[in-house]
Amino acid sequence: MASSTSLTLSQALLARATSLHHGSTQSSTDRVSLSTFTGLKSSSSTTPLISSSRRAANRRCASLPGPTRARPGVVKAVSVETAVDQAADTALVEKSINTIRFLAIDAVEKANSGHPGLPMGCAPMGHVLYDEVMRYNPKNPYWFNRDRFVLSAGHGCMLQYALLHLAGYDSVQEEDLKSFRQWKSKTPGHPENFETPGVEVTTGPLGQGIANAVGLALAEKHLAARYNKPDSEIVDHYTYVILGDGCQMEGVSNEAASLAGHWGLGKLIAFYDDNHISIDGDTEIAFTESVDKRFEGLGWHVIWVKNGNTGYDEIRAAIKEAKAVTDKPTLIKVTTTIGFGSPNKANSYSVHGSALGAKEVDATRKNLGWPFEPFHVPEDVKKHWSRHVPKGSALEAEWNAKFAEYEKKYKEEAAELKSIICGELPVGWEKALPTYTPESPADATRNLSQQCLNALAKVLPGLLGGSADLASSNMTLLKMFGDFQKDTPEERNVRFGVREHGMGAICNGIAHHSPGLIPYCATFFVFTDYMRAAIRISALSEAGVIYVMTHDSIGLGEDGPTHQPIEHIASFRAMPNILMLRPADGNETAGAYKVAVLNRKRPSILALSRQKLKQLPGTSIEGVEKGGYIISDNSSGNKPDVILIGTGSELEIAAQAAEELRKEGKAVRVVSFISWELFDEQSDAYKESVLPAAVSARVSIEAGSTFGWEKIIGSKGKAIGIDQFGASAPAGKIYKEYGLTAEAVIAAAKELS
Amino acid sequence: MASSTSLTLSQALLARATSLHHGSTQSSTDRVSLSTFTGLKSSSSTTPLISSSRRAANRRCASLPGPTRARPGVVKAVSVETAVDQAADTALVEKSINTIRFLAIDAVEKANSGHPGLPMGCAPMGHVLYDEVMRYNPKNPYWFNRDRFVLSAGHGCMLQYALLHLAGYDSVQEEDLKSFRQWKSKTPGHPENFETPGVEVTTGPLGQGIANAVGLALAEKHLAARYNKPDSEIVDHYTYVILGDGCQMEGVSNEAASLAGHWGLGKLIAFYDDNHISIDGDTEIAFTESVDKRFEGLGWHVIWVKNGNTGYDEIRAAIKEAKAVTDKPTLIKVTTTIGFGSPNKANSYSVHGSALGAKEVDATRKNLGWPFEPFHVPEDVKKHWSRHVPKGSALEAEWNAKFAEYEKKYKEEAAELKSIICGELPVGWEKALPTYTPESPADATRNLSQQCLNALAKVLPGLLGGSADLASSNMTLLKMFGDFQKDTPEERNVRFGVREHGMGAICNGIAHHSPGLIPYCATFFVFTDYMRAAIRISALSEAGVIYVMTHDSIGLGEDGPTHQPIEHIASFRAMPNILMLRPADGNETAGAYKVAVLNRKRPSILALSRQKLKQLPGTSIEGVEKGGYIISDNSSGNKPDVILIGTGSELEIAAQAAEELRKEGKAVRVVSFISWELFDEQSDAYKESVLPAAVSARVSIEAGSTFGWEKIIGSKGKAIGIDQFGASAPAGKIYKEYGLTAEAVIAAAKELS
Repeated sequence: MASSTSLTLSQALLARATSLHHGSTQSSTDRVSLSTFTGLKSSSSTTPLISSSRRAANRRCASLPGPTRARPGVVKAVSVETAVDQAADTALVEKSINTIRFLAIDAVEKANSGHPGLPMGCAPMGHVLYDEVMRYNPKNPYWFNRDRFVLSAGHGCMLQYALLHLAGYDSVQEEDLKSFRQWKSKTPGHPENFETPGVEVTTGPLGQGIANAVGLALAEKHLAARYNKPDSEIVDHYTYVILGDGCQMEGVSNEAASLAGHWGLGKLIAFYDDNHISIDGDTEIAFTESVDKRFEGLGWHVIWVKNGNTGYDEIRAAIKEAKAVTDKPTLIKVTTTIGFGSPNKANSYSVHGSALGAKEVDATRKNLGWPFEPFHVPEDVKKHWSRHVPKGSALEAEWNAKFAEYEKKYKEEAAELKSIICGELPVGWEKALPTYTPESPADATRNLSQQCLNALAKVLPGLLGGSADLASSNMTLLKMFGDFQKDTPEERNVRFGVREHGMGAICNGIAHHSPGLIPYCATFFVFTDYMRAAIRISALSEAGVIYVMTHDSIGLGEDGPTHQPIEHIASFRAMPNILMLRPADGNETAGAYKVAVLNRKRPSILALSRQKLKQLPGTSIEGVEKGGYIISDNSSGNKPDVILIGTGSELEIAAQAAEELRKEGKAVRVVSFISWELFDEQSDAYKESVLPAAVSARVSIEAGSTFGWEKIIGSKGKAIGIDQFGASAPAGKIYKEYGLTAEAVIAAAKELS
Repeated sequence: MASSTSLTLSQALLARATSLHHGSTQSSTDRVSLSTFTGLKSSSSTTPLISSSRRAANRRCASLPGPTRARPGVVKAVSVETAVDQAADTALVEKSINTIRFLAIDAVEKANSGHPGLPMGCAPMGHVLYDEVMRYNPKNPYWFNRDRFVLSAGHGCMLQYALLHLAGYDSVQEEDLKSFRQWKSKTPGHPENFETPGVEVTTGPLGQGIANAVGLALAEKHLAARYNKPDSEIVDHYTYVILGDGCQMEGVSNEAASLAGHWGLGKLIAFYDDNHISIDGDTEIAFTESVDKRFEGLGWHVIWVKNGNTGYDEIRAAIKEAKAVTDKPTLIKVTTTIGFGSPNKANSYSVHGSALGAKEVDATRKNLGWPFEPFHVPEDVKKHWSRHVPKGSALEAEWNAKFAEYEKKYKEEAAELKSIICGELPVGWEKALPTYTPESPADATRNLSQQCLNALAKVLPGLLGGSADLASSNMTLLKMFGDFQKDTPEERNVRFGVREHGMGAICNGIAHHSPGLIPYCATFFVFTDYMRAAIRISALSEAGVIYVMTHDSIGLGEDGPTHQPIEHIASFRAMPNILMLRPADGNETAGAYKVAVLNRKRPSILALSRQKLKQLPGTSIEGVEKGGYIISDNSSGNKPDVILIGTGSELEIAAQAAEELRKEGKAVRVVSFISWELFDEQSDAYKESVLPAAVSARVSIEAGSTFGWEKIIGSKGKAIGIDQFGASAPAGKIYKEYGLTAEAVIAAAKELS
């Protein structure tokens, strides 16, 4: 498709269809680049995002082609009922609900693996949501203004697959239901956004989904505040969640819910599947708190649907009430029976996570009056649901027309919003990054990071984020913006409070809302331990969150071992699809940001120093992009006597040691090893040019665990690091006592060369 | 001290004084063994615990020698006021409180680092607790029946150091206050139980302390239920906590508080320092929930002390009320002014985490009428506090006498309780561990783990634990016991609900309550990500928690990548002072438990399979104790053609590949590498006997990240593993698609040898 000024947004989105391979097993170092795409009319001034994920495709910003897609200009003026669309009589509703139940039962049965209990209990709320309430376009799961749905209780994914199937999503065909939980299917054991269009985020680890949903609702509120006009609510959707008892018990959900209440996310509506059963049995054994009271305390509106099994009108009324409360998120506690319909297993843990078994499936069929064969969708149900394809298409077309109007009146805002919707970076954005010379003043990389963030905020409309109550230590405030708060949602400094785990999961939600949103979040590096589950989901679900992690070593000094990361760098180097970057000075910090911004489908962790570091000769943004590179060398013929390798704050020590060694006549190369992942991706020739195989005299220095360094330094090298916990004392003292000194590097170098 | 039947418990405890080095910087592989001790009268039938921590000393079970220790038989019948001991008039109370404030101010000022704000605001509640309410013996910080105090807001540690100093603890002398936050001081930047006797647990990372306190209170309730008799409440103490806004925001605190409410821990009394300030400013920016309402929802009794700055009687009354509520934990919300007394910095974030500065210190001295020089404790304050040494001594003596009575009547219970207090394992306990032959049926190591746990429960009175709602998947139920619940606290199966982080932190509290308590906890291995912060504290604070982590690889199959650990093994191998064990079959599982039980000051993680594994020839408990060992070999002269190395479920694959290779005439050694840490600790000769330097043809196979394996296989070896995320499909299919097969091992072996 050629770049053209007459292209509509919808057409432009189509240009980025999802054609790339899903579910590849290729290794994470064997990555695919997004084929470049031509953008909107401003395409000549935009840069395609570089994707470096193993499943590379910006499916968020891609329309799936389909005959039913209405073109702008042929918009059918559908009267879209935004509250509740009661198209079917109760008998048909029940038939539809039982269809959902049996699709789940049958798929789990065929796989002989999975969780039938939740879909059977939650089918009524699922039906009401997808058939009556939610606005979406099955033929373009990435339509920007769709309502978002998150199944936080991800094990119940057959509920969502059944709903996507009925609604007409191409991603879940009958054969997909039949290959539930099988190799390369679109219907994996838990919802995975990178496998199944129509799934917004990756859930399963409990509590993540509700926190992701808070991020999605935050993004909506933020973008609405920035782009809506009195005459055009161009951003306007709800975020729905289903969460279970398990999600409720997890601390991360409380953290996120506290923030949702604080921010007054009125368009967040969460259904709490209150079925009183968890894996170990009745929730009585471990979960007797009053969830209602807790959520009221957290500032939510709480509604109780007492009969979630057949009280369809109750469910509908609750949603209506929830929508009417615009200044608070709503929790609809829906009391259900897990495994509803199964005569012998309903209301027991045995229906939670195993197939019912042929006998009980039969009994359930009899009990619910379901004469059909497995995977059958009755014609009337099919017909009833068939309206969603044209309706969705019309909804999108209607919105496209609205956007065209908006664009005419608000050209600048429209262009900016488009860039957020499509994930396009303005050409030359990276020129905003600061550069430094060895004469620039020494500074902590956390401060240099703040310079980068503030420079980027001016050119990247989608950059927003904040810290877990450490903004003034992490140096993450965007000075040109105020705080994102309930009454100032257009601002971009997010105050997460001391809630690292919720922060990470919320950022995943923001990242998955729109590809042009670039969330960053910050805390002390050691506290990645609190949020590791969310960081892993960033990596797995391809959310390009930027983790700004300061106080990255014993160099933080007096706070002591509880605050000093040791094993953290190694632990992230071992994690797939994440970039672990530890810059040494200003240029490397800028380079780390360049890499992090470009990697929209791979999260980045920037480990930054609390202490001042010199600006080193030889460092560069270009070097950073290669992961490992030479910053100084007095050898010739690619044959140094010794190679000194450092990262972050220790690169300076390596450089200092090199100077001394050179004075003594040694040929010394100093290599900055800021990112192992990026170095791994370079050509063999490049790697050989940095770390020649013939040179086994290699010394590494890093204020962290030496675990893994054998890969870089080889069996004959020497790794200087810390394989014990830290200590409380001034930083310089600890460095000395722990032997992280130029003297130690020099001694090791002499021993080896 | 010779073993003697006439020794009292108190004397026996003295035999284990803390004489070993604290705060050592020796590497974690350079470990010290506890010098053996002679135990109680039953010493000939007990085994000393093997400690393998870098700071090895069972200080929990050690009395510090001192002239004031009352011997049993010379018990002074002190009338100990257990509610509130109002010995001083208000003027003296205020003087004492200001002493606490200025000790904190002066120490932070001298270090030019630290957090004066909390001690200044919380000095009143601190004073009331340590001077009027708590029962402890300063000369034996490990006296079993002491009240426990946890400063969950650990950054305010100068509060606790000042209180320990005033109360007469030897650990915090004036010179210790003056070396606050300095190298090797007893007063590190956050409270560290392994550095400072009198500090119960290690806090600083927010939210951990309150969860530890739940564990301490659980332990008290459990032991009281097991050992108290109608005529003797031999176990009877309170657990007090101070937590701040930061702790309240963390999800882990909500998890633990929900359980505390569920369990009805009536002797847990938490002070919430409600000062409205966190690092980023007013809590209004991120924390506007109603904490009161949330805690009521969680089943706590909530009291509000409106004037925490000078309302001493309010504080006293609140404690009295809290003690009267015996079926619920109590949260006393104490509204305070952070930095109280500082005219220009009080009630602002600037007083939270920095020294006041000389000028403001002067202004504060004037404001509070404090004419004294730095670190001065006025004579009348000193005199007032001086009663705690004799009082504490008398309290312990009184309890010792009570115990002597108890012992006469309840010999068996007394012996068991003693073993828990002292951390003694019954001689021959390890014989209870099951052993297996290659003919034993194949089984999942999670099932074999359950056999071990149930075997150990019969011989280890201190073993208790449970799962985060996965007991039936983790296989962790102790069949001979019921559930630890509000009304059955004597039972040993703990139901943590889906609260991994709280579970880990609670287990840390249990472990630190008494050295003979051996807590274990369980979830899927991948969800260590949720609890990593607590696991790290286990390692740092020397809590010998046993982490039973099942579903340890892609071998779990259909649940998919959200549930399949990849980088986790590597991430724990990089963590100091923790044992990462991945047993391959029954004998190795038993060996892993032997090691885990013996390591009381180093936590262990057992990674266990969901899938069935063969019982392999050559595996053994003794082998496990060495970390890496040969299970089969057809080579001679320590010169195999190739060494195949496997762990856990992949050892079977290595063994299978070896058989094939041997058929082709190769000399093949198969090595099980269950624990890298234990192998590291072996002699060079032993290591050479397993992995001879001359043999570079080495192939490793492990269903996890290959990160770090270069250390074992060398630059020329080949690591077969998984450096990408997993997939949802039947386990066998994933193994095949990911190339974790005997064929792959054979191919690699042939390429190398």
